[in-house]
Amino acid sequence: MRTLTVALGPRAYPIHIGPNLLGQAELIVPHLKTRRVVIVTNDVVGPLYLAQLQSGLEAHGVAVTSVVLPDGEAHKDWPTLNLIFDALLGTRCERSTTLVALGGGVVGDMGGFAAASYQRGMPFIQVPTTLLAQVDSSVGGKTAINHRLGKNMIGAFYQPRLVLADTSTLNTLAPRELAAGVAEVIKYGLIRDHEFLHWLEANLERLLAREPEALAFAIERSCRNKAEVVAADETEQGERALLNLGHTFGHAIETGMGYGQWLHGEAVAAGTMMAAELSRRLGWLDDGDVARIEALFVRAGLPVTGPALGVERYLELMAHDKKVEAGRLRLVLLRKPGQAVLWGDAPAADIAAAIEARCA
Amino acid sequence: MRTLTVALGPRAYPIHIGPNLLGQAELIVPHLKTRRVVIVTNDVVGPLYLAQLQSGLEAHGVAVTSVVLPDGEAHKDWPTLNLIFDALLGTRCERSTTLVALGGGVVGDMGGFAAASYQRGMPFIQVPTTLLAQVDSSVGGKTAINHRLGKNMIGAFYQPRLVLADTSTLNTLAPRELAAGVAEVIKYGLIRDHEFLHWLEANLERLLAREPEALAFAIERSCRNKAEVVAADETEQGERALLNLGHTFGHAIETGMGYGQWLHGEAVAAGTMMAAELSRRLGWLDDGDVARIEALFVRAGLPVTGPALGVERYLELMAHDKKVEAGRLRLVLLRKPGQAVLWGDAPAADIAAAIEARCA
Repeated sequence: MRTLTVALGPRAYPIHIGPNLLGQAELIVPHLKTRRVVIVTNDVVGPLYLAQLQSGLEAHGVAVTSVVLPDGEAHKDWPTLNLIFDALLGTRCERSTTLVALGGGVVGDMGGFAAASYQRGMPFIQVPTTLLAQVDSSVGGKTAINHRLGKNMIGAFYQPRLVLADTSTLNTLAPRELAAGVAEVIKYGLIRDHEFLHWLEANLERLLAREPEALAFAIERSCRNKAEVVAADETEQGERALLNLGHTFGHAIETGMGYGQWLHGEAVAAGTMMAAELSRRLGWLDDGDVARIEALFVRAGLPVTGPALGVERYLELMAHDKKVEAGRLRLVLLRKPGQAVLWGDAPAADIAAAIEARCA
Repeated sequence: MRTLTVALGPRAYPIHIGPNLLGQAELIVPHLKTRRVVIVTNDVVGPLYLAQLQSGLEAHGVAVTSVVLPDGEAHKDWPTLNLIFDALLGTRCERSTTLVALGGGVVGDMGGFAAASYQRGMPFIQVPTTLLAQVDSSVGGKTAINHRLGKNMIGAFYQPRLVLADTSTLNTLAPRELAAGVAEVIKYGLIRDHEFLHWLEANLERLLAREPEALAFAIERSCRNKAEVVAADETEQGERALLNLGHTFGHAIETGMGYGQWLHGEAVAAGTMMAAELSRRLGWLDDGDVARIEALFVRAGLPVTGPALGVERYLELMAHDKKVEAGRLRLVLLRKPGQAVLWGDAPAADIAAAIEARCA
């Protein structure tokens, strides 16, 4: 088992990474405030892993209640969030009860926002079961639900007390979900870790084959990169925004297609290609750099062009992005592979041309 | 104008108290992040004060959008909160836009939770227009909405950048609302400021007559007491719980009667009498102390007994309280007038008897 610590002062927390962690309740128990837990999961992950997690905790004398949500980004909304509140209040959970989110990014986002908001904050533990959640959404304290006018628009910054990334849970992940997680792994190489980018170019197929050692290395390296960024900038005022490479374009794809049509990682891959194309137009990347990035996504089975929504629709959707400030769209672009920059001065014509060049 | 600062390190903020502050936009403008503001108010306060606040800001070059909510505790719920999100997203507000809550406690709670949650946090300014909000809900960063199974169950700790307590707005307050605010003012004397309790006994009628100097003194003294407590305990782990004198009983009254039947301050007054009666049974207060507290509430026109819900129903409603820990009900009681204590060891029979003694 590998362990790294996200250094956030009084809110610092450990991330444990390795196989077969789910049944090791002794890793969880020291982080509970009282011997009472509510596990939030969904109807896909629950049947696979809930019993193992629950019985392990119960064997340690922990009282466990579970809430099983419908699966999918389409349910990342208030009515579904309210199912958690109904269960917490219906079973008289106290604010010292710990909420454990068992599932992918949607479960983590909803469980985290519920924990942040229930009685203005209860202890929270993440048990991410997808590669995407293990390398991204379980690290950094971002929680949110969607609004019909925009993704992740209602939420909180709220840190877990512990993250348990059990690599064995990735064995049941659909190939398309695994690839979507790989998109975020590649992102860390692109924005700030050129050495890791080289490692990925040499080892991508080992990840796709789910070799335990390769997975654990890539997850730890990704989490370490993200943890360093988050520790320096907990509430996303500066460097943290670089984690959103491909996300402004990607969110437009997700929203424009309707939540759940494109996986988040797929949208990020296509969005990153738009960002790379724009970076090329600004003279920062050359044709070879763009081809190199594209090749890596293609090997992972990820899309490298966005859907044909039309440039105007992309721009309209991007105007809702949280990185808009004083009406100006700030984009994460690449100075070179391994070095991202937040840029608010890209000419509108170049932004439009980059989208156009990467639309199906 | 009086000014005091709530000392919360990087989240410290000033409270300005005095007459005719609403039109002094120069007090607000330095606290804005950008020249864009959304004012959240309700359909009672809006017609009285929105135009004045808005035109003052616009004269300083600030773009202002307003959201007018239906008035009342019955609307402190998700669908009404969502009206704010609809407006924020519909007008493409950025996370640098400032949300200004203009109104009483409900508007402050909802505006504050909306600000805490919109894009995971936008700048927030409070302009409380009731005595209760000026002395209580605008200080300390508590925001929340109600759930059908409990009051203030979903929310956040979120600090404003500025509180503007304009005492002139109290001139349009209904006498019953003013009295409800006085209940919270008396609370500060009871829990930690015996000198202030004496002042109130000497000056209560000046407050009820809305003498500007008396109001400003009482508001500042109340805010100072609360600010001291909050600065020491921002997220309510210890001393801050003492601010809830009468609130556990009071919330049971509010919930049991249906939100909006009893004003919060009225429920707190009756709840405080239950706490006083229980403190007497524990041997901490004598008959004279209880009579002295009762006399002050009676002079303010406040209720000193709760509704006849039945003792069992009170206990059931109180079991949902946020101060329950490890299944044990912790109550704020009085060691003596001017000194409150959080107590988890009151015998169940005494709790029941205290409720019984103070039920209509």
